[in-house]
Amino acid sequence: MRVILASASPRRKEILSRICPVFSVEPARCGEEVEGEPAPEELTLLLARRKAEEVASRFPDAAVLAADTVVWFEGRALGKPKDAADAAATLSLLSGREHAVYTGWCLLSPKGGRCGVCRTEVTFRELDTAFIAAYVASGNPLDKAGSYGIQDEPSPVLRYRGSLTNVIGLPQEEIARAFQEIGVLV
Amino acid sequence: MRVILASASPRRKEILSRICPVFSVEPARCGEEVEGEPAPEELTLLLARRKAEEVASRFPDAAVLAADTVVWFEGRALGKPKDAADAAATLSLLSGREHAVYTGWCLLSPKGGRCGVCRTEVTFRELDTAFIAAYVASGNPLDKAGSYGIQDEPSPVLRYRGSLTNVIGLPQEEIARAFQEIGVLV
Repeated sequence: MRVILASASPRRKEILSRICPVFSVEPARCGEEVEGEPAPEELTLLLARRKAEEVASRFPDAAVLAADTVVWFEGRALGKPKDAADAAATLSLLSGREHAVYTGWCLLSPKGGRCGVCRTEVTFRELDTAFIAAYVASGNPLDKAGSYGIQDEPSPVLRYRGSLTNVIGLPQEEIARAFQEIGVLV
Repeated sequence: MRVILASASPRRKEILSRICPVFSVEPARCGEEVEGEPAPEELTLLLARRKAEEVASRFPDAAVLAADTVVWFEGRALGKPKDAADAAATLSLLSGREHAVYTGWCLLSPKGGRCGVCRTEVTFRELDTAFIAAYVASGNPLDKAGSYGIQDEPSPVLRYRGSLTNVIGLPQEEIARAFQEIGVLV
């Protein structure tokens, strides 16, 4: 069965390639508006399902995987930074403190589906001005929710509890199990 | 967590009550139009997902279960009969032959979701005119897809292979497992 990743993220692509040798990429064409103020679990699951349904409606014979990741700090989602100054401000905010990363994911196929949400707790090191300036200058924070990549070197992360790949955008273990359970990959 | 059955079917209600002691009923408000000519697995799964998403959008905190069942014979779905004559014609068509029943189901909750499709092969007895007349006169065939209920006495069914509750409208074993896996029922 054909497998489609409903996301343009190169990091999700890399993680999926560890699970599934051959797949294609078809980013979802849907909005990310939500009503009310859902909790992060509901928000990410809702958006992942919406993306997967949209792509599955165009490719009904395929197994479609979609995901939505938020960096959650003090009751709100930290998005991608607008510019370098915004990235520096976000890194200062998270410095020395703990936040949570949620990825909602949804796998749909003609043989069945699975969806779920994964949470990882992340604690930042105390970041000094020099670190933040150099890190922002590297360009790495600029395309990422929360303005950081846990896989960057040097990383702003001191420790994490939970799935590492979840923080990168796709919880590998949960998703590998889902593929096996619906019988798409053995 | 609140559990909602997105179906007005009294037979589905009865099966769900074996799995889940307390739930409410909120029939889905969505159409059943589909594009193209999907296979029965895709058709039932698509409609079950559509119903579950519609009800979940109104009750985002609940676990929502939806299902769609078709009686499939010679490449097409046999719906509910228009009247007694239509029911008798359908029963004649199925008499002494094998058909398949598919139920697509979808369970969505804020903690994750599962969807799947279950197939049961059903073989009818040779039905004579007297049986068909009496069975149609009982009224039992009139509100059912394929114009029969496998649980009716006397039943037109000689034998089946697969899940019995799937033929009635909700594959009990698969759905009980799904509730356990997403952690709604222990």
